[in-house]
Amino acid sequence: MPLSMYQASVPVLLHALGNLSAILNKALLNAESRKFDAAVLLQARLAPDMFPFIRQVQIVTDTAKGCGARLAGVDIPSFPDTETSFDELQQRIAKTVVFLQGLQPAQFEGSESRDIVLKFPHQTLNFTGQDYLQFFVLPNFYFHLTTAYAILRHNGVPLGKVDYLGGGG
Amino acid sequence: MPLSMYQASVPVLLHALGNLSAILNKALLNAESRKFDAAVLLQARLAPDMFPFIRQVQIVTDTAKGCGARLAGVDIPSFPDTETSFDELQQRIAKTVVFLQGLQPAQFEGSESRDIVLKFPHQTLNFTGQDYLQFFVLPNFYFHLTTAYAILRHNGVPLGKVDYLGGGG
Repeated sequence: MPLSMYQASVPVLLHALGNLSAILNKALLNAESRKFDAAVLLQARLAPDMFPFIRQVQIVTDTAKGCGARLAGVDIPSFPDTETSFDELQQRIAKTVVFLQGLQPAQFEGSESRDIVLKFPHQTLNFTGQDYLQFFVLPNFYFHLTTAYAILRHNGVPLGKVDYLGGGG
Repeated sequence: MPLSMYQASVPVLLHALGNLSAILNKALLNAESRKFDAAVLLQARLAPDMFPFIRQVQIVTDTAKGCGARLAGVDIPSFPDTETSFDELQQRIAKTVVFLQGLQPAQFEGSESRDIVLKFPHQTLNFTGQDYLQFFVLPNFYFHLTTAYAILRHNGVPLGKVDYLGGGG
């Protein structure tokens, strides 16, 4: 039996969001043990014209909830970008997890061929549901997750690939 | 019609490998215009205990060819890690593309439930084909692709998200 759109999206996103939450906990503990303000990490970035850590985490959750909502055909929950702490980022991740957990596999049936339209300030992107998942959601989701991880590694937070992939990966 | 294992893997990997090749070209041109030896970028890394750029690119191709071979049930082509230039990395990407292009969708039928065993020096991982693709291949592939991109951005190579996602993304 081939992959369903639900199986190809929701469990994957939930698994990675759990890994991200654990990574944030490790970063916070590391800041405490090295005696610097963890808020410094929230504003850290890899290049002056790349987003800081806090924005990378916000976009990870935006990509996940946007995917779940669009493929299930429901409204995208709006999370204002007002976080200023690790604790508030954890709450945002948790809200995203609860939203995705509330979606049912039946809502995703037929979503592979559904028209998905993404409107940005300077362009509009049109996808089928399948292309949206494969060529937009997953590469973007992992891009921002990896960049968040890389910002922490660049700043000396002790993490390894197993933290990114999760247990058994 | 749900996703086939072929559609969920080969076209996705080929698209991203094409993007990576274009990113390498931009990095090489940028080194020339800034008048430094591009080989410096090959050894650049984001943390002392992370792999350098050249290894990130090698792992991207390893992950892609390993995925294609394991899911199609054929031998994994062996590429020795002997590259020392952008040109040789491009040849490795091109060999990976040719290998993936030679695989047929029919070879992937039933691969979602095939047993996949990955042997590492200190552990052995067991997956179904579907879990291997979703929880190992795609996160790893995008991890190393994004880290390669981030190393270049950290070193001032002018790239944007569109280079990573490819045209229209």
